[in-house]
Amino acid sequence: MPDFLWQKPGTHVDERIMRFMAGADVELDRHLFLYDIRASRVHSAGLARIGVLSEAEANAICAELDRLALGFQDGTFVLDQRYEDGHSAIEAWLTERLGEVGKKVHTGRSRNDQVLVASRLLLRDSLATLVDLCEQTAAACLEQAHACGDTPMPGYTHLQRAVVSSVATWFAAFAESFVDNGELALSSARWIDANPLGTAAGFGVNLPLDRAYATSELGFSRIQLNPIYAQNSRGKFELQALTAVAQALLDVRRYAWDLSLFTTAEFGFVSLPDAFTTGSSIMPNKRNPDLVELLRASYPTVQGAMTELQSLLSLPSGYHRDLQNTKGPLIRALVHGLDAMALMPDLVRGTQFVAERLEAATEPSMHATDRAIEMTASGVPFREAYRRVREEYDDLAARSAADSIAARVSPGAPGDLQLAILQGRLEQLRQAQKEAGL
Amino acid sequence: MPDFLWQKPGTHVDERIMRFMAGADVELDRHLFLYDIRASRVHSAGLARIGVLSEAEANAICAELDRLALGFQDGTFVLDQRYEDGHSAIEAWLTERLGEVGKKVHTGRSRNDQVLVASRLLLRDSLATLVDLCEQTAAACLEQAHACGDTPMPGYTHLQRAVVSSVATWFAAFAESFVDNGELALSSARWIDANPLGTAAGFGVNLPLDRAYATSELGFSRIQLNPIYAQNSRGKFELQALTAVAQALLDVRRYAWDLSLFTTAEFGFVSLPDAFTTGSSIMPNKRNPDLVELLRASYPTVQGAMTELQSLLSLPSGYHRDLQNTKGPLIRALVHGLDAMALMPDLVRGTQFVAERLEAATEPSMHATDRAIEMTASGVPFREAYRRVREEYDDLAARSAADSIAARVSPGAPGDLQLAILQGRLEQLRQAQKEAGL
Amino acid sequence: MPDFLWQKPGTHVDERIMRFMAGADVELDRHLFLYDIRASRVHSAGLARIGVLSEAEANAICAELDRLALGFQDGTFVLDQRYEDGHSAIEAWLTERLGEVGKKVHTGRSRNDQVLVASRLLLRDSLATLVDLCEQTAAACLEQAHACGDTPMPGYTHLQRAVVSSVATWFAAFAESFVDNGELALSSARWIDANPLGTAAGFGVNLPLDRAYATSELGFSRIQLNPIYAQNSRGKFELQALTAVAQALLDVRRYAWDLSLFTTAEFGFVSLPDAFTTGSSIMPNKRNPDLVELLRASYPTVQGAMTELQSLLSLPSGYHRDLQNTKGPLIRALVHGLDAMALMPDLVRGTQFVAERLEAATEPSMHATDRAIEMTASGVPFREAYRRVREEYDDLAARSAADSIAARVSPGAPGDLQLAILQGRLEQLRQAQKEAGL
Amino acid sequence: MPDFLWQKPGTHVDERIMRFMAGADVELDRHLFLYDIRASRVHSAGLARIGVLSEAEANAICAELDRLALGFQDGTFVLDQRYEDGHSAIEAWLTERLGEVGKKVHTGRSRNDQVLVASRLLLRDSLATLVDLCEQTAAACLEQAHACGDTPMPGYTHLQRAVVSSVATWFAAFAESFVDNGELALSSARWIDANPLGTAAGFGVNLPLDRAYATSELGFSRIQLNPIYAQNSRGKFELQALTAVAQALLDVRRYAWDLSLFTTAEFGFVSLPDAFTTGSSIMPNKRNPDLVELLRASYPTVQGAMTELQSLLSLPSGYHRDLQNTKGPLIRALVHGLDAMALMPDLVRGTQFVAERLEAATEPSMHATDRAIEMTASGVPFREAYRRVREEYDDLAARSAADSIAARVSPGAPGDLQLAILQGRLEQLRQAQKEAGL
Repeated sequence: MPDFLWQKPGTHVDERIMRFMAGADVELDRHLFLYDIRASRVHSAGLARIGVLSEAEANAICAELDRLALGFQDGTFVLDQRYEDGHSAIEAWLTERLGEVGKKVHTGRSRNDQVLVASRLLLRDSLATLVDLCEQTAAACLEQAHACGDTPMPGYTHLQRAVVSSVATWFAAFAESFVDNGELALSSARWIDANPLGTAAGFGVNLPLDRAYATSELGFSRIQLNPIYAQNSRGKFELQALTAVAQALLDVRRYAWDLSLFTTAEFGFVSLPDAFTTGSSIMPNKRNPDLVELLRASYPTVQGAMTELQSLLSLPSGYHRDLQNTKGPLIRALVHGLDAMALMPDLVRGTQFVAERLEAATEPSMHATDRAIEMTASGVPFREAYRRVREEYDDLAARSAADSIAARVSPGAPGDLQLAILQGRLEQLRQAQKEAGL
Repeated sequence: MPDFLWQKPGTHVDERIMRFMAGADVELDRHLFLYDIRASRVHSAGLARIGVLSEAEANAICAELDRLALGFQDGTFVLDQRYEDGHSAIEAWLTERLGEVGKKVHTGRSRNDQVLVASRLLLRDSLATLVDLCEQTAAACLEQAHACGDTPMPGYTHLQRAVVSSVATWFAAFAESFVDNGELALSSARWIDANPLGTAAGFGVNLPLDRAYATSELGFSRIQLNPIYAQNSRGKFELQALTAVAQALLDVRRYAWDLSLFTTAEFGFVSLPDAFTTGSSIMPNKRNPDLVELLRASYPTVQGAMTELQSLLSLPSGYHRDLQNTKGPLIRALVHGLDAMALMPDLVRGTQFVAERLEAATEPSMHATDRAIEMTASGVPFREAYRRVREEYDDLAARSAADSIAARVSPGAPGDLQLAILQGRLEQLRQAQKEAGL
Repeated sequence: MPDFLWQKPGTHVDERIMRFMAGADVELDRHLFLYDIRASRVHSAGLARIGVLSEAEANAICAELDRLALGFQDGTFVLDQRYEDGHSAIEAWLTERLGEVGKKVHTGRSRNDQVLVASRLLLRDSLATLVDLCEQTAAACLEQAHACGDTPMPGYTHLQRAVVSSVATWFAAFAESFVDNGELALSSARWIDANPLGTAAGFGVNLPLDRAYATSELGFSRIQLNPIYAQNSRGKFELQALTAVAQALLDVRRYAWDLSLFTTAEFGFVSLPDAFTTGSSIMPNKRNPDLVELLRASYPTVQGAMTELQSLLSLPSGYHRDLQNTKGPLIRALVHGLDAMALMPDLVRGTQFVAERLEAATEPSMHATDRAIEMTASGVPFREAYRRVREEYDDLAARSAADSIAARVSPGAPGDLQLAILQGRLEQLRQAQKEAGL
Repeated sequence: MPDFLWQKPGTHVDERIMRFMAGADVELDRHLFLYDIRASRVHSAGLARIGVLSEAEANAICAELDRLALGFQDGTFVLDQRYEDGHSAIEAWLTERLGEVGKKVHTGRSRNDQVLVASRLLLRDSLATLVDLCEQTAAACLEQAHACGDTPMPGYTHLQRAVVSSVATWFAAFAESFVDNGELALSSARWIDANPLGTAAGFGVNLPLDRAYATSELGFSRIQLNPIYAQNSRGKFELQALTAVAQALLDVRRYAWDLSLFTTAEFGFVSLPDAFTTGSSIMPNKRNPDLVELLRASYPTVQGAMTELQSLLSLPSGYHRDLQNTKGPLIRALVHGLDAMALMPDLVRGTQFVAERLEAATEPSMHATDRAIEMTASGVPFREAYRRVREEYDDLAARSAADSIAARVSPGAPGDLQLAILQGRLEQLRQAQKEAGL
């Protein structure tokens, strides 16, 4: 008997080819397995609603699916190379236990919409997690901004000291960016929140599937109607989820770059708790910011995955086996990206600025711009103001960083950070997430 | 006298270096110039509100800015290599005409927030255009879906004929995708709809700028508060705008791929109007789908630009000159992407399917799946159904494509396209765009 | 006692952080482990040469390293999560068995040059394999070109039928490209064939290491001298190896694209052996070219990995932990790319053209260009020739594809393929590979 | 009369479509124009050799082509929007002046091989320039390494001070990398050094073109034989040229990153000549390393272009209009990359290290590793050595950087840089370049 349903009797299937075609599919499917089971459960119930399955059959299938899910979670069922993929494992489980009835769950669906719906559920959950982590990171940044008061800090342009800034301004920058990142994650989650189950192999089926029921049971906010579009959206929706992850990691990379500089002996602005650094076996005083460096390196993982997907999707409409290869980059990037984000709230809370080093780095020349603005705002012509600032350069030493911060009152600036507004946006985001059921 | 304000007298500035540093900046600034003028106008008015400029000064500046904008639009003012960039051109224009007063527009701002606000306005307008074009494309697809009735068309998986589908299903797929693309463009426009003007070089200024006024005058829906974040968002917001363009072009590429196949002699499913093809000088019957091929090639332009930005942004916080290089990929990709999208509505309307070729391509075997589902749905066990379908293979020839389409009733499938729902989503999108003032 | 040498007693090391920092390092190191052991062996012998180890110590270490290598190969030693990475596993093995002597192998080297040398050996071997596979693929293409004689085949531009071509021309195209790909792989192997062992952490060591000895023992053709450059070349040399893989896969993708079209019902030019296709459970006549599609999808895997590396390498000089993340994309792309290439020779041999379908696709209009060239070459003015060809269009039907091929005598064209020259270049490549010891 | 040869009389050609299809083609062709003229000259002479043109005709054509080349170079002929592209401009020029004879140059070639050969010549010349610039940069680095003697400099890992290194070691690192980059550029030039002229539209022609003659006249070292491969190599060879540019820019980016840090107030290791920095209008002491930042930003330009090409090339065999879009990224990246490289030799020569700042940064702890190696090399067990180094930490202050450098004698290390070997490799490269005629 052949190994595969589609295999012609007597055909030799080259093992090397089979291995290449399988790739790491079954390992990757571990990330999709519970979603696949969940969608299979809903599909069975849906078939019962339209009379394709009897109530008893649907109940039996659902009960077995529940057992499989439990077994997978507690480790008694292992999804491994014995199966071609997760779908085969579900089919094998049901057929072994229920015989022909187990096969019936496949009526009116195809592996094509089965993998789509499982992936879609994974994307939605991952984006919900991302929203959470952005909120937590923003909250930690706001706490730090509040806690740091007006500790001055050099403001750099071109990595050259330019004007007086403050530690709180730096933290507030990341607070605002992570609120934005959270909002993007939420709107991306809404965008992909469409149910592809019921579109079969890309052309629908000759059964009056109750797609509204399945959509509601799976918690989607709308049906992805068109079956060709459902296929064509494979990779497309994945890209959008990764876009949201990447936008957050763009700021993780920026944060890590800042810490990488600030923890050098030369800057010395920040010290990190021991838990966030590794030591040197030979230089007891040396602490290496390995974690910070690996966080900096997280963006490329997602960027590479996006490039892989973007390049892969140069295809005509409909299903092609190429699309199997969307799984690898997607899951790699999602897992790594969320793991990186999960470390951010603690890292933010552990970022300790060293006031004396910051103070030592505050040079008189950093008041030059403030002084020039004072003069021009009071009517001194520009060139004249510049000339005077250059002449009175030594007088700048008399100015204090605290005064400079206090005077920097344009909204959002060190003298008027408006943290309450950021706090308000964070609350709104949490509220919107709740309302979206994510 | 030195060429640049910052130049030390007597310093030789190497011309080759200056040219490298300038790059194509001034040409690129043509795309930003009117936005820069508009933001300069609002900044002047804002300075008058806080007493830094007199009403008369602000009025004089605004009048000159209006003249400059008109001159630029009617071609009497050319933004070219005489200027380092657009900002310099504005400064030169005002100073020549108003002397010292002209310089005052720079009080309380920096080139850093000047370029940010101009870019932000460009992004917002470009995304508004993108929403429009997605709506028009979706509308054209819906028209075609309505017009094509139930013309059957082979449904392919793996580019192999699989089941009966319809032309209307194919058009409806793109209708749904472009509604989605329009929604993404709109939510991306909202996400970046924050005003960075007033954050100066990245640390605010010691002036009580009325940022709420500027924000409202420029039509932004919120202030981008934090000045460090304003700098750090350079490239980041650009990436999101390009993401929205790229998502639309992903479907343009898919559409073009389909047409590229469908217009081959072998498929022969589609004929394109002469305006969309080019001829061969020697083979009078040959029509080359150059336009379709160039549309297919549009995605890589945007993808390349995104990679360039993503790789460029590996930087610590604050302004670095590296960021100048965000302009090139951004503008290249926006212009090319929107140009491509602008051709889509007409291309969709001009896509003429050839019914007889579609019919000829509809093989009996394409009914096999339908037949198997009929049997299993009526209780025949799977293997048995499969066996029977294989046995009765010749009987499939008796089935008609029309019946197959009619029976494919799962919602969204050829037998129940639910175009009204897509039409409804399109209307909602238009309404949402209107409400967002985009 | 702390878990890590560098760990301060009493310090809590967060498990989540440790897991994030370890990543998949130890699994990835399975691809490097034998190389690491081999280089460790040579390093020990080298230390004996300069008197840092006694002969007996070096012999003991080498003997244990050999046991470890054997154990790893026969599966009795498993490199898994018990170890931080492969280096730790080697150290643990030696220390357990040899005590303090086992530790001595680390004198005068660092993990930084240890991982460099192991990676370099992997790159070199992988490129040698790539050269082999390119040669085999080119050889298979040449066989096919010889075997196919002058079977005509439409030549396409814009996927539109343009002029008469031949199956042999198509195969010869890939023969030439894979000879080129093999040459690039070979020159890339030479480029990276430099030994970094002995550069320690990036600044050399205060020992007179015999680097010439180690270089010769490990079969490298030159020393990578500078220790800072050795560090800076991490990722850089990896990129070059992937470039060579990617160039080969570019042609694999092209080949797969052609087959994907040629195996459609509409073209029907090629039939693939069953071993290269998968069947449909319900449509017995349907054969899906899954393998071909997955080969087409292989390029993006390597492209994504290259993007990941390119983006990761935006760093100052010296070692940073970010560089650990070069391993993942490198190994993923190397393994997948070589697996794909390994299937090519058989796929080429299994590509069966269907003469009758090719013939049916040869239209009279495909002779138009030939006819026009005949006329212009004999002095008829261009416009006149074009006019005449258009007028005599129906006469073209009288021309035969065989005649057209025979007349197409520009060197390399269907009428004069010059396969012997390609064969000669293939021989030269094999010779050059041999001489390079790869 | 229609505008285009292929245009059907009475057909309306939409201007917007024409503009989209033309893109920036004619501007880009300015970079190819002289190469196109040169290849046209050789093609004419070749046609005379096989009797398709008379000697007189060929001479007339060559004379007019020479005039066109001169006109283009002295600015009296401008290649602009009046022409569809460079090919059209050549054709128009010849036809206006020579009538029907002018048209004859197109016998036996197609725009497809015409653009291939012009691009190939551009690639070859660009790579020759790249080899030059790598050699000059390496030479400048070697000069600096010689000049800097043993000035100590902290050696960093993880941007943390680790061990004593030297300025000469840092310069020698870049010397070695640019020798490698030069070698890669040279081998890439050799790889693409194949003549595609004579392959016509991708299937050869029915004329006995003397391709060996054309190949030799154009200075190519081999014929690119197969006409389908010639088409398929479009983009592929471009990618390889960009790979060589990118490898060089990878080190430019690294160099720029180092300078960006070293010129901060905090490090203060390097001061740059005023010509390489820009000033601040208000802070007279502030010098911004804009050039260094723009050099750092050069890599992404090439990386983005590579991604664009890689993604574009997902196509079946043969010419497709998509390939027109290879020109933009190619030329953008080549021009920008070579412009950046051209600034490197002067930048290297202008990089002035500040000895006192380097000295101040040399901490006693940086001798710890040296000390431990001394002990272990003389037989002290590892843990014991580590323990002792930690205990005697204060004694390390007595050690001098000069001694540390002198003792670091592993070949290539600060104590034994072996600059003569690098110098030797540079000479070999120059010799090899000469022999290759590049």
